[in-house]
Order: sequence, then C-alpha cells, then structure tokens
Amino acid sequence: MASPSPFPNLPATLTWEDDCLRILDQTRLPQSTVIETLTSAHEVWRAIHELRVRGAPAIGVAAAYGLCVAMQSSRDLPIGAFRETLKERASYLDTARPTAVNLSWSLKRMLRAADRSNAGDTLSLYRALVDEATSIHREDQSLCEQIGRHGMTLIAPGSGVLTHCNAGALATTGLGTATAPIYLAQRAGIPFRVYADETRPLLQGARLTAYELQQAGVDVTLITDGMAASVIAGKRVDVVIVGADRVAANGDFANKIGTLSVAIVARHFNVPFYVACPSSTLDLRTPDGNAIVIEERRDDEVTHLGAHAIAPTGIKVHNPAFDVTPHDLVTGYITERGIINAPFDTQLAALFGAAS
Amino acid sequence: MASPSPFPNLPATLTWEDDCLRILDQTRLPQSTVIETLTSAHEVWRAIHELRVRGAPAIGVAAAYGLCVAMQSSRDLPIGAFRETLKERASYLDTARPTAVNLSWSLKRMLRAADRSNAGDTLSLYRALVDEATSIHREDQSLCEQIGRHGMTLIAPGSGVLTHCNAGALATTGLGTATAPIYLAQRAGIPFRVYADETRPLLQGARLTAYELQQAGVDVTLITDGMAASVIAGKRVDVVIVGADRVAANGDFANKIGTLSVAIVARHFNVPFYVACPSSTLDLRTPDGNAIVIEERRDDEVTHLGAHAIAPTGIKVHNPAFDVTPHDLVTGYITERGIINAPFDTQLAALFGAAS
Repeated sequence: MASPSPFPNLPATLTWEDDCLRILDQTRLPQSTVIETLTSAHEVWRAIHELRVRGAPAIGVAAAYGLCVAMQSSRDLPIGAFRETLKERASYLDTARPTAVNLSWSLKRMLRAADRSNAGDTLSLYRALVDEATSIHREDQSLCEQIGRHGMTLIAPGSGVLTHCNAGALATTGLGTATAPIYLAQRAGIPFRVYADETRPLLQGARLTAYELQQAGVDVTLITDGMAASVIAGKRVDVVIVGADRVAANGDFANKIGTLSVAIVARHFNVPFYVACPSSTLDLRTPDGNAIVIEERRDDEVTHLGAHAIAPTGIKVHNPAFDVTPHDLVTGYITERGIINAPFDTQLAALFGAAS
Repeated sequence: MASPSPFPNLPATLTWEDDCLRILDQTRLPQSTVIETLTSAHEVWRAIHELRVRGAPAIGVAAAYGLCVAMQSSRDLPIGAFRETLKERASYLDTARPTAVNLSWSLKRMLRAADRSNAGDTLSLYRALVDEATSIHREDQSLCEQIGRHGMTLIAPGSGVLTHCNAGALATTGLGTATAPIYLAQRAGIPFRVYADETRPLLQGARLTAYELQQAGVDVTLITDGMAASVIAGKRVDVVIVGADRVAANGDFANKIGTLSVAIVARHFNVPFYVACPSSTLDLRTPDGNAIVIEERRDDEVTHLGAHAIAPTGIKVHNPAFDVTPHDLVTGYITERGIINAPFDTQLAALFGAAS
C-alpha cells in the first residue's frame, strides 16, 4: 500500500486498501469531507467525469486503481476473456475526460503491464494489475517530492508565489506538483506568501488550493482570477507556479482555464512563470498546443453556483475547461528530473523522449 | 423629468418624479426586480455604498438627486442654515465610495449651483438644486448617446466585442458608456457578437451586462474572467470596450478589478482596447494612476456567494474593487467629444481641461 496524504490535517486524495478504492469527493470540499468507495467501472468513470477526483496526476492514479476495480467482477472469467474485457474497460475509462494526458497514459501503462505479465491464471493477472497501479501510485508520490526539491529553489525568503487552480496535494496523491515546492519551502522554514486564484467556474483555487495550503499552515491569500494582474503589478509576486494537464512536444501546455491570462500578465511584468509537472504529463505525440483537445463543459457551471443561479436564465455560455499557453510564455518546466528551460522541444525530447 | 430607461424590457436605473428618488436595486438582479425609494441622506449613502446603485455615471446622478432627498427634511430652515446643512450633507454623501470620481464631481457641481443661485428663500434654492440634478441626469443620457455615436464606428459587421464588468445602461441613466456603441450598432442592424466577462467577485458582468444585453436582443456570450484570454487568443474578439471609474491626467484609469488583465491580454494579441467614458470621469487633478485611491472591500464578497460559503472558513482575502490600467495599454478613449488617442495627457487636457 502506498502512503496516504502527507498532511495530518488533509484527507488523502484516494486510498487503496483491501482491494477497495476510496476517493475524497473534491466537489464537496471544503465544506464537507465525504469519502466515497468506487465499486464499478461506471462509478470510476463518473467520479473522474464529474471531477470528484481531479488533477492530472490524481486522475492517472485513480484510473489505474479504477481499472482494477472495473475488473473485479471479471475475476471468474477465463484469462483470455479477462484480457479482452480489460481492454474494453480501459478504453471506456479513457473517455471520462479528454484533456489530461495522464488518464490515457496510466491506462496504457496498465495494459502494457498486463501484456507483459506471464500470469497463468486470471487472479494472478489481476494481482499484477494491482501491483502496477500501486507502482503508479508510489511513483506519483515520489515524483511530487522530486518536483518539490527542484522547485523549492525558486522560492526565495520573503518572496510571493502565485498559483492558479489546484495543482496541489489534492490533484495528486503526494505533495502536489505546483504546491510541492511550496510545501518543501514551508518545511524548510523559508518565510514566503502564496496568492491563490479562486479559479472560476469550479473554484478549485478557493475550495481546494486555499484549503490545503491553509491546512498546512502556509501563508495563503485568496484572490479572484481578475485580481492576479493587480497583485502582480503591485510587485507582490516573484514567481508564478502552475500545473499542467498536457504538455505538447514543443512545450505548449494545456492547464485550467485562466492559466493563459496569468502567463501573459506574468510576462508583461517580467515575473518568471513555471509549470510543475511530472513526465507523465508530457505528450510527445502531440506536436503543439493546437493539437490539444479542450474539454467544453456544461453551461450551468458558469450560470449556477450549486443550485443558486448567478446569471440570467437562457444566457449563452462558453465554458472551455482549459486553455493552451504557448511555450514562449514559459520560463521553465519543473519536472522530477530538474528544471527545464527553453528550447523546450529539444530539452523535453532529450530528457523524456525515451520514456514516453 | 429626464427620460426613464431607453429599453422597453429594462427597468430604469433610477427615476425622479414628484420629488421622489427611486432606484433599481442592482444587487438583486437578474433574479429580482426591486425598486427602492430613498428618503434620507443615510439611505442614499447606503444605496451607493452597498452598490444597489453603482456604475460611475449612475452614482453621479444618484448623488445629485440624493443630495436633494437629503435636503428635503431641511426645507423649513432659514436659507443660511439650509446652505450650511447642504455642504455637510454633500460631504457626507461624498464618503460613500472612494474610487469613482463622478460622485464628488456631481456633488461639487450641486454645491456650485447652490452658490450661483440667487434664490431668496429656501424652497427656491431647493428647486434650483433639483433643476441642477435634472440637468446632470439629462446630460448623462445625452453623453451616453454621444459616446455611442462615436464608439459604434469601432464595431465592424461580423466582429466580436469583449467587455468587462458593467459599464452598461445600468451603470448610467442612458445607453451606458461601454455598451452605448453596442446598442447603437445593434439599432443600426450591424451583425456582431459580444463576450461579457462575469466579473468576480460581484458578478456585474453576469448579473447586469449579460442581462441587459440579453434583454436588448444583443448576441451576448457569458464567460468567466479567466476565459477572456482564451477567447481573445482564439481570434473571436476584434475590439475590447470597457468603462472607467476615474481617468487620471496622464490617461491612466481605474476600473473594475480585472480590467488590467484584459488590457494586458488585448495588447499581447494586438486587439484594440478602448475606454468609454464621459468627461465627468476625467480627473485632471489626479496626475496618474498611482494617485488613485483603490477601494478595498469586505472579504465575504470573495468567500461567499449570498449566504453560501465558497472558500474555507478564516481564509485570508485580498479584495480590491478596482485596478489601474496604465495609459500605454489604452488604444483610445471614447468620449462625448469623439475618440481620443495618445498622447493622452495633452489630448485630454486640450479637450476637457477647461471643463474640469
């Protein structure tokens, strides 16, 4: 079993224990802490689709364990039929959300593990899948730690860090990606402050980032997305660190809607803009940002807050969940193998080409 | 009496009839249409302070009539005492909000009218005040119309317009400032589309701009503030038009928080960025944006939506109501006397120096 949340005050994003996948329902935070047990492929699909578990790395881990859950009802099948069903269930889970590459990355890795396995019976093959999912889980925690170690060098004493959305502990199963440098700097006793964009429409910054940083005792200030420019203009921010849902081969990347705006504003004021992500978020098969599919979500995420209407009835809405930031606005990628600077196409390929 | 709302489907921002000031409570829109009668200086102060009437030009008109309301209980005083009380009430109303210059502009103009008046009795002086307020009201409507006529030349057939917050009919007593070009282009049968930023925290874009444009039959799409960059990057926007709460002598201006971000993004993508405002919003005594006082508002505007908490309890919040956009990001000012381009310091002084 991989470790639960690294924070005493924060529930684990997900746990796997006795063949049982439990997730923290992130749509209910911070008001309610609801742990949900997922028992079928459909439940896993819905939990990812409805953002109860979200964040590219956490989606990857949830999908790996989720595929094990999805196969539990098939453990009586002959091994050939089990292998066929495995592929079907993996393709089904892969449709839960389009933008974060970690979903398909993780499912492909699970299928490769099955292909590689010389298990003679279904139950052994199932155990091999669980082992692979546990490896993905442990690796996610270790990747966060390594990203944190490299990234914490960017946080100088007395400085200000701005982040957008939640690339935090809740978006992973460890220290987070964008937050890993923050947590390690905090542990090292470095004084600094964080500004968290609330991140409309789903308020992952307000509900998740502000919450988890507050729980960890970090000096965090919540702002609306439109305030980032004013805070940066006021020289309160020395570095921006965000996460990523998919990084293309040329260094363009997709992240939560609003990231592009922060990147442009950071560049305008010459504030360094870093993207923290593990190599599993890199998709060398996607040549550039134009090729990244952007998920368009439901209107009521914008027009309603819970059951409460905040816009006129029948208003037309545009609700892309992500935007693409071109590589020339990125100062560097904080990865498990160090901080990568431009030119990103050759640097990313050199470091991660073999792995993808 | 000045005309009510120019739109059949939209209630008037405010009305003055039979010595009675009625305002549309904008904090309740679009869900409820509540008309409130203001009967004392304190009620006027609160209505402005609590944003039930808001928008720089509308605040100016409300303050002018509001000062009349504030003096109604003093109509029995000798004229000397009435004049003293008038000054006190005007300074009191002037403290309702700090950033929009129209508030103090309008109150100063009312005091000048009183000074100028050779009324021999209190009631005549009160009537002179009402006449001046009515002039301010009529002029506001006429200024909007003129801004619209100059600004509509910027809206080409098939183009996209982006606006932030509400510098609309509801922010004035006429066609609005940023929306006046939109309404006149619509009346002229020009096909175009509008993107309205929702404008957190108080959602004036979602609740007011989207609402009034929808009521007027304009093709309007609601987006969150963080989506503006993605919409502009996608070449859907040909011109940005926003309002202003105070324009400094050098052309820097304060407007609703989030405006700076839109201006920087527009510049990044070479999209023209215009500010629509009447000369009453120009404050030549404020040399530049650094000298503009920015109102900091209550935390719960960010942490709550109505009674609904959307952030962790006790989280630290930064909530400036406005930001300052430097003049070098402004393509032009759309004023009642035409579109003004750089250099703004000399152009603004030349056109409006005598008037201020």
